[in-house]
Amino acid sequence: MPVTNTLPDFSQGAAYVRGRYVPIGEAAIPITDWGFLRSDATYDVVTVWDGAFFRLDAHLERFFASCARFRLDPGLSAQGITQVLAQCVRLAGLRSAYVEMVVTRGQPPWGSRDPRLAVNQFYAFAVPYVWIANAEQRARGLDLVVSSVQRIPASSVDPRAKNYHWNDLTMGLLGALDAGGDTAVLTDGAGNVVEGPGFNVFCVNAQGVLVTPAQGVLEGITRRTVIEMAQAAGLPLQVRALPAAELRVAREVFLSSSAGGVLPVTRVDGQPVGDGAVGPVTRRMVQTYWDWHQDPRHRLALEDVAPPAG
Amino acid sequence: MPVTNTLPDFSQGAAYVRGRYVPIGEAAIPITDWGFLRSDATYDVVTVWDGAFFRLDAHLERFFASCARFRLDPGLSAQGITQVLAQCVRLAGLRSAYVEMVVTRGQPPWGSRDPRLAVNQFYAFAVPYVWIANAEQRARGLDLVVSSVQRIPASSVDPRAKNYHWNDLTMGLLGALDAGGDTAVLTDGAGNVVEGPGFNVFCVNAQGVLVTPAQGVLEGITRRTVIEMAQAAGLPLQVRALPAAELRVAREVFLSSSAGGVLPVTRVDGQPVGDGAVGPVTRRMVQTYWDWHQDPRHRLALEDVAPPAG
Repeated sequence: MPVTNTLPDFSQGAAYVRGRYVPIGEAAIPITDWGFLRSDATYDVVTVWDGAFFRLDAHLERFFASCARFRLDPGLSAQGITQVLAQCVRLAGLRSAYVEMVVTRGQPPWGSRDPRLAVNQFYAFAVPYVWIANAEQRARGLDLVVSSVQRIPASSVDPRAKNYHWNDLTMGLLGALDAGGDTAVLTDGAGNVVEGPGFNVFCVNAQGVLVTPAQGVLEGITRRTVIEMAQAAGLPLQVRALPAAELRVAREVFLSSSAGGVLPVTRVDGQPVGDGAVGPVTRRMVQTYWDWHQDPRHRLALEDVAPPAG
Repeated sequence: MPVTNTLPDFSQGAAYVRGRYVPIGEAAIPITDWGFLRSDATYDVVTVWDGAFFRLDAHLERFFASCARFRLDPGLSAQGITQVLAQCVRLAGLRSAYVEMVVTRGQPPWGSRDPRLAVNQFYAFAVPYVWIANAEQRARGLDLVVSSVQRIPASSVDPRAKNYHWNDLTMGLLGALDAGGDTAVLTDGAGNVVEGPGFNVFCVNAQGVLVTPAQGVLEGITRRTVIEMAQAAGLPLQVRALPAAELRVAREVFLSSSAGGVLPVTRVDGQPVGDGAVGPVTRRMVQTYWDWHQDPRHRLALEDVAPPAG
């Protein structure tokens, strides 16, 4: 029995598409948008936890920096974007959410191939909070596979501008899953691990020093949070090249991602890291990560964001 | 005055989206499809000229090879795809067309990040024939800029599988346009030119040998056509690394692309190639390219393709 004039169902998530709020299942981008046909886009992901954005300022700052690097214009101020994101979360009725903002090139006038003539387009959506690792994986720790696929180098695509060029990450992930692992970390072609699909990587090396790669990686906000937590705790920290060989003999390994925070790794290529259990530094980082969500410096409560104008 | 039940307007182009034919302006992909969110897709472009597909068999063969490399399944046979493409062209009322077929990853069940669990999606569209260079540019020849951006290497993304990882090409193009050039060719980071946004490159070097890069490039069907035309004409040909320095002192330079065939280049970085006019080998290749469109070995007339079943 067809029903007309039903209210939109935002229960699976809400999106903002060219000025309108639509249920996530109806959110689509034109097939002719270079954001699709040339992956000519940038984006950022911020989370909402317990009714508040976490470090939204840092995500917005990076988003605008990404836009500048790729010469994309979201057409909205930081305040305007904040209002749209909060509205998506409210419409979806979420208290914890995974919130993505996107700007695409749009398309130049038909027949032109000049990106400067395109009108850029802004999109956003909020869906239930996403975890890179499920509860069971978080408890036992992930099995991380060092992939033979090389991460796209910075000389080709600037990794500091968040982008959808993920074929290398996806092919690495497929290889890791086929090998019985949980996820993959890619290398730089010179023996150093760099990053994986949606996360940065850290280890507590054999000398007890926390190490994370300096180059060829997204400057993750969660990565920054881990660095700040380590500094606050007085842990020895080095941000430099991280050889896969060093990762393999580390005491502890963990991932950082907006999709779950700090995520323990207890196997690399199927071999136990340390004694194979989630280690003390990792546990401390997980605890501090969630503690910091209550810190007023990092929280922006949804109810403190004004509704969008108009 | 609102009008209901109008017939769809396919005059700007026609698309096939999840089993339905829609006007190109209404064709969209879900924002949550990994084809967008991770540029997890492959595609191919075939042209229709004067009512017939040109080398459709070769494009379909490459498309299926691209799908296999990225573990994507279009869910249609070569015959099924042919019928969909022809139907798009017919609906758009086109005798000459730019026809794109795409398969995207789709999306895994919510919460999963396993690409193997996604249902892949097939899309297609036909729009009026696209030229990389406009008529004036084709007459005078393009000014090609050798970009300092490095093409994404084969160790990261397999260039033989046609993909939308174009940020390097787009940033190179923007730099070329800013510099007053017409388009850009990227290098491999070792001083060799490889390819540009949507085209392969050829030169007739100082010794009169036709040279095109062997590695790190899409194996373009128009590139293959040029190689076959050169062999048929008995021209000396080398498929090998092509140093930018060799390109700069070449007698002739041209591009190959499905979006226009053989396209003359008469300046590199603003400096004239040879005497700065379109050269004899280039002219011959342009002429032969269009002559071959009449060859029954390469033509599949639209009227010889059965309509899609159902």
